[in-house]
Amino acid sequence: MSQPPQAAPHRVVVVGGGFGGLQAALKLAAMPVELTLVDRRNFHLFQPLAYQVATGALAAAEICFPLRRAFRGRGNVRVLLAEVVDVELDARRVRLRNVVSETALDPLPYDTLIVAGGAQYDYFGHDDWQRHAAELKSLEGALTVRRRILGAFEAAELERDPARQAAYLTFAVVGAGPTGVEMAGQIAEIARSLRPDMRAADPLRSRILLIEMGDRVLATFPPRLSAKAQRSLERLGVTSRLGESVIDVDAGSISVRRPDGATERIESETVVWAAGVVASPLARLLAERAGFGVERAGRLAVEADLSLPGHPEVLALGDMVSLRQPDGSVRALPGLAPVAMQQGRHAARVVADRLDGRPPRPFHYLDKGNLATIGRARAVADVKGVQLSGFLAWATWLIVHLWYLIGFENRLVVLVRWSFSFFGRGRGARLITQAPEPPGD
Amino acid sequence: MSQPPQAAPHRVVVVGGGFGGLQAALKLAAMPVELTLVDRRNFHLFQPLAYQVATGALAAAEICFPLRRAFRGRGNVRVLLAEVVDVELDARRVRLRNVVSETALDPLPYDTLIVAGGAQYDYFGHDDWQRHAAELKSLEGALTVRRRILGAFEAAELERDPARQAAYLTFAVVGAGPTGVEMAGQIAEIARSLRPDMRAADPLRSRILLIEMGDRVLATFPPRLSAKAQRSLERLGVTSRLGESVIDVDAGSISVRRPDGATERIESETVVWAAGVVASPLARLLAERAGFGVERAGRLAVEADLSLPGHPEVLALGDMVSLRQPDGSVRALPGLAPVAMQQGRHAARVVADRLDGRPPRPFHYLDKGNLATIGRARAVADVKGVQLSGFLAWATWLIVHLWYLIGFENRLVVLVRWSFSFFGRGRGARLITQAPEPPGD
Repeated sequence: MSQPPQAAPHRVVVVGGGFGGLQAALKLAAMPVELTLVDRRNFHLFQPLAYQVATGALAAAEICFPLRRAFRGRGNVRVLLAEVVDVELDARRVRLRNVVSETALDPLPYDTLIVAGGAQYDYFGHDDWQRHAAELKSLEGALTVRRRILGAFEAAELERDPARQAAYLTFAVVGAGPTGVEMAGQIAEIARSLRPDMRAADPLRSRILLIEMGDRVLATFPPRLSAKAQRSLERLGVTSRLGESVIDVDAGSISVRRPDGATERIESETVVWAAGVVASPLARLLAERAGFGVERAGRLAVEADLSLPGHPEVLALGDMVSLRQPDGSVRALPGLAPVAMQQGRHAARVVADRLDGRPPRPFHYLDKGNLATIGRARAVADVKGVQLSGFLAWATWLIVHLWYLIGFENRLVVLVRWSFSFFGRGRGARLITQAPEPPGD
Repeated sequence: MSQPPQAAPHRVVVVGGGFGGLQAALKLAAMPVELTLVDRRNFHLFQPLAYQVATGALAAAEICFPLRRAFRGRGNVRVLLAEVVDVELDARRVRLRNVVSETALDPLPYDTLIVAGGAQYDYFGHDDWQRHAAELKSLEGALTVRRRILGAFEAAELERDPARQAAYLTFAVVGAGPTGVEMAGQIAEIARSLRPDMRAADPLRSRILLIEMGDRVLATFPPRLSAKAQRSLERLGVTSRLGESVIDVDAGSISVRRPDGATERIESETVVWAAGVVASPLARLLAERAGFGVERAGRLAVEADLSLPGHPEVLALGDMVSLRQPDGSVRALPGLAPVAMQQGRHAARVVADRLDGRPPRPFHYLDKGNLATIGRARAVADVKGVQLSGFLAWATWLIVHLWYLIGFENRLVVLVRWSFSFFGRGRGARLITQAPEPPGD
């Protein structure tokens, strides 16, 4: 007796294990599909806390979660450590490269493709600035920032030339969005916490400059909270330099154009980049393969249901996309984890609808609010029009971040670390690791 | 009325922040001396747990402790992030290099110099093997091992050529001392824990080879415990290859000479080096400056009170020294943390005696026993003739390591991690970090 022929399971390929891709994959894993999750890295990075790794408050592994672990025992899910080289839209397959052996893999066929490539920092066309101004989008970037910040305090302690010592104690953070504000606040906290540990160089003599092109910090928050955040930063010892744009970064200095048009060269051994982002190159790849161009900040315009125009079987999401509006214009949602997570879950819902023969639904963003922390027990929050600041906002920030941190083990470990750092001002992960950078860097 | 002239405080320089140097410095910090601790790194590494970082069980920062934090608020203690370039015994000063800026520092004068440079792995004169066979003495080495082991499982998952897949799933650990045994056992545990996470390559098909020149594993333990350890390893899936010596290591293979004289080339993408150690180059530097040569394994022969012959104001300790015996022979104590810690405290005592005008006392080693863990809930212990194995030995190992781990915060965090890994077999720190190694590596 022969079994009735079974339909081959629907094959879904998800590219990217960030907030959006992981949410899509977690929801899809419970559905009757054959899922392949592709990422260049073997872990999910909880990027909102990358700045805490960069400042020695948390260890790298404490904000990362092995992707395979999320799908252990799920026989319908495969995780591939690979990089997307190309997408063949007509043949419906993805070309991949093995990132360990650097060889090509067999093309991966799909019935639905979900691309969640994220975004990366944009050096305004000056890619050479990147070697002197590390960023916080990747774990390696955060570790580089950590090595440079801690190394600068160590070098200041050993330096006898006052001008050189001042350059080591000058920290420039570019961009006053939430990441830049958090970073500048944390550098100020490090300087405080290092004070009893240093002898020759007083960390409190540090200059911490927050350089922002716009006219206020945290531009996405209500002006009242921007003003509060700026005052909190000032009390910590951070100087906000508004209306200034970066015109050059090299080894040992950063140059800016001030609002009056004059330029200024600031001697600083440590520059951290937290300014504008640009979409993953996957946005341009998909746009070109579909026969159109990219939008502002390199984003890919997708339909209201997140599908690629003309290719309903391809979905894209997160801060690599903009949404096409009914009037033909495009709308870019903020590059926040909640946007990506909601879109990831929506993409899984689109697949479920398709399997059940329902038409795809448009994506609607539910704005749960905006949070930014400034330093120990200081934060600002804008939740559905309710504006919080100070300790209450900080407690909210803490709970939200612990809650969303993936992995119960990491939540406990981070809670231990934060308790110690709150009550003892310690920084347990204050390591200068990796070999010194190659000459010239 | 003029104050009576105060004697300038006794200046002590301690080189090295490992187990010996840190113990010496902690004890000296409470004495009326002016102390300078010099290390190339800004942290103390709890090296006995480095293999747990190499296998993703713990995060790097969880076994490291910032050196400055140990002396915070102690005005008589300075910590310098620097490397010793030379020691001028007659002028009584140390020449240093700033490791951040790579420039020379002012020579550092001392009244007493304590050198605790430790040891490093010895590739039997084949330094070129090091790039293919990473070691576990340094944090960077442990992170390299972690990247390679986890990367090998990932590459195996993607590989279609059965021979290449087998090479990725072959792990060779060289040296069956405690580190080699622990490492091989942990790789077997990783293979088990990864099984539900992999689809194409079954990690249980891994070959884990423990290559040892001698005729048993854990040669410093009683033969009965060596036999128990070997059986435990076998049950985990580790093959002990005794009486085999390494004759070559290159990218993708390791070659050995078997006891019958035949040679064998083993295809393996991952080789971990845990064989013989050689003393820090500081041993040779001090010996040469004092006008004599080094002993076996590059160790410096010191007097019974740890002083450099002819230079009572210079003390050296840990696994970079051998002790001169009354009969003129030299005795090398095992390269264990307890030896270094006891010698570090002894060195501080010698300084105290000198300040009080007492003659220096000879060092006596108090052997508290020998511990090695093999895998989850398996270990062997030899404590003053009492031989333990199995769960009891493992519990002892656990308590001893948690107890000696520096920093209460780290102890709590490691306890959380170990509880999770014991009850859930998880590995929270399973990250493949750092950029792919440069071509050719």
